[in-house]
Amino acid sequence: MSELRRDPITGRWNITVTDAALGPDAYEVEAPAERGGKCPFCYGSEGLTPVEIFALRPPGSASNGPGWTLRVIPNKFPALRIEGDMARRGIGLYDQCSGIGAHEVIVETPDHARQLADLSTEEVTQVLSAYRLRSLDLRGDTRLRYTLIFKNHGLSAGATLEHTHSQLIALPIVPKRVREELKGAGAYYDFRERCVFCDMLNQELQDEERVVAENRSFVALCPFVSSAPFELWILPKGHQGDFAKSTDEELGDCARMLRDVLGRLRGTLRNPPYNFIVHTAPIEPREREEYHWHLEVMPKLTRTAGFEWGTGFYINSTPPELAAKALREAQVAA
Amino acid sequence: MSELRRDPITGRWNITVTDAALGPDAYEVEAPAERGGKCPFCYGSEGLTPVEIFALRPPGSASNGPGWTLRVIPNKFPALRIEGDMARRGIGLYDQCSGIGAHEVIVETPDHARQLADLSTEEVTQVLSAYRLRSLDLRGDTRLRYTLIFKNHGLSAGATLEHTHSQLIALPIVPKRVREELKGAGAYYDFRERCVFCDMLNQELQDEERVVAENRSFVALCPFVSSAPFELWILPKGHQGDFAKSTDEELGDCARMLRDVLGRLRGTLRNPPYNFIVHTAPIEPREREEYHWHLEVMPKLTRTAGFEWGTGFYINSTPPELAAKALREAQVAA
Repeated sequence: MSELRRDPITGRWNITVTDAALGPDAYEVEAPAERGGKCPFCYGSEGLTPVEIFALRPPGSASNGPGWTLRVIPNKFPALRIEGDMARRGIGLYDQCSGIGAHEVIVETPDHARQLADLSTEEVTQVLSAYRLRSLDLRGDTRLRYTLIFKNHGLSAGATLEHTHSQLIALPIVPKRVREELKGAGAYYDFRERCVFCDMLNQELQDEERVVAENRSFVALCPFVSSAPFELWILPKGHQGDFAKSTDEELGDCARMLRDVLGRLRGTLRNPPYNFIVHTAPIEPREREEYHWHLEVMPKLTRTAGFEWGTGFYINSTPPELAAKALREAQVAA
Repeated sequence: MSELRRDPITGRWNITVTDAALGPDAYEVEAPAERGGKCPFCYGSEGLTPVEIFALRPPGSASNGPGWTLRVIPNKFPALRIEGDMARRGIGLYDQCSGIGAHEVIVETPDHARQLADLSTEEVTQVLSAYRLRSLDLRGDTRLRYTLIFKNHGLSAGATLEHTHSQLIALPIVPKRVREELKGAGAYYDFRERCVFCDMLNQELQDEERVVAENRSFVALCPFVSSAPFELWILPKGHQGDFAKSTDEELGDCARMLRDVLGRLRGTLRNPPYNFIVHTAPIEPREREEYHWHLEVMPKLTRTAGFEWGTGFYINSTPPELAAKALREAQVAA
């Protein structure tokens, strides 16, 4: 049997299969593709990428040469570019706007052989600090309305280069999925004068059934409406709409949680391809009292087909209660 | 360079890459997977499926045996079931509802070796007539609010069986993507007292740039905001919200157009995996003056990744103008 579940944030429904549910061993995970050629993210390849925007380097080492521990560069094939005018125009019925924005790559380590889950807590903290630094810097450009940080790991999750990296795209509009969360969280806040994410966290911590891990400032859980098997969210316990306002201490706790969770996913699902994204408040002068930033991790274990496309409705064959249990019980290296 | 484009129906934006655009040869198309075992949709396997709901058979041939030319059966692994009570309940913050609905399979031909694009116009008309028949029949169940007809062709488009078939899922709610179209079309109708789809059709037929084919009652075009390369819509020229109200003559013209378009896609993209869906008005007593049914075909040539997931925003590397030109110029067998 299955049940329909409605997301309290966006109002989106899904179908959760509760009998004949699929456990972690039911999913086939692809072997990583072998690639030839020189990796542009390794030491000595700095000349193959656009000029670096930011790097962590020992004092005295030269820009765009080896020695760095983390490097931020413009995407060589950007979806959007920072240069140009922000022109909007109509074409009969249609609206069009020039492709203004930023598209950056965060190379998380010079070591080609390590995944993000292999990095130390200090190294992961540096990655999160680079996200914060770049997010804050891009706010200077008043044409931009939103910064999305995301990571694609594995070929079928859309990673076109194997060397571990994440990306940042800054957009001149607030994207639809964020607007949906803002709208739902806003309606809840108007009605209850509380944050829907905080209420969800409280309920989940009391139930425990969908909680995967918890530390001083963060909780990892499988959401009640999981669009795909083993979807997992990391949320700060403290109410905060803007990721970039996180303190150093919070980023350290978030890094510890992210490392822990990626280790659990790797152990439970045999190094699955995955995406993660950071959902944070838009770039705007007002404070978003109703919003609560979070990081969503989505293992890529299934294919979406016509039904999902036609409805925006997902069928999930692994109830989040089962996924959370498997991830909670996974052995994780310290 | 790229540009942002806004969909006039849903308000959704996308990124369309206009320089460095990718033509039809840029996409790798997977080889079909070899499968073992007896196909449950071939003659002689009728006992492997649930009991048939409807079949086209010669007079005197027995149900659930060979001889049929088209067969409708319940899905053996249904996402939703027709039996049970329609109970909605709250779980703290969350909403849940039992998985009531229908999930049927339309086996389009007994011939395992033929694709939908290989069927005659008469045979495709029979498939569309079966969609109409089942849609009308399910309206008797007052718990249901929406019927989605869809097809998955090819492994990476989610087809788990090779034998050509389509599916129908009837839902107790109106799904999000349809609600978005209804909302956008409703706002446009309130403002202009015209149908946004009709206006779009008029503009497209005048421009010609994105039109792929046209016959007496249908137009095929690549939409201005195409979420993926070679996305293609088939729309009736006459204003009609409800697919199931199509006349026999209209279904014949639609079948001719669908066959034509699937042939063009196969020729241009070397038998790509694809999904198609029929978007029609919800099941409700009122007439949806503002809505206009259509069939969306989505070749599955790319993978979605973190950015698409995080934003609901698609990056399309083949502008619809280029896709329409390639499809318009494709050779099609009569």
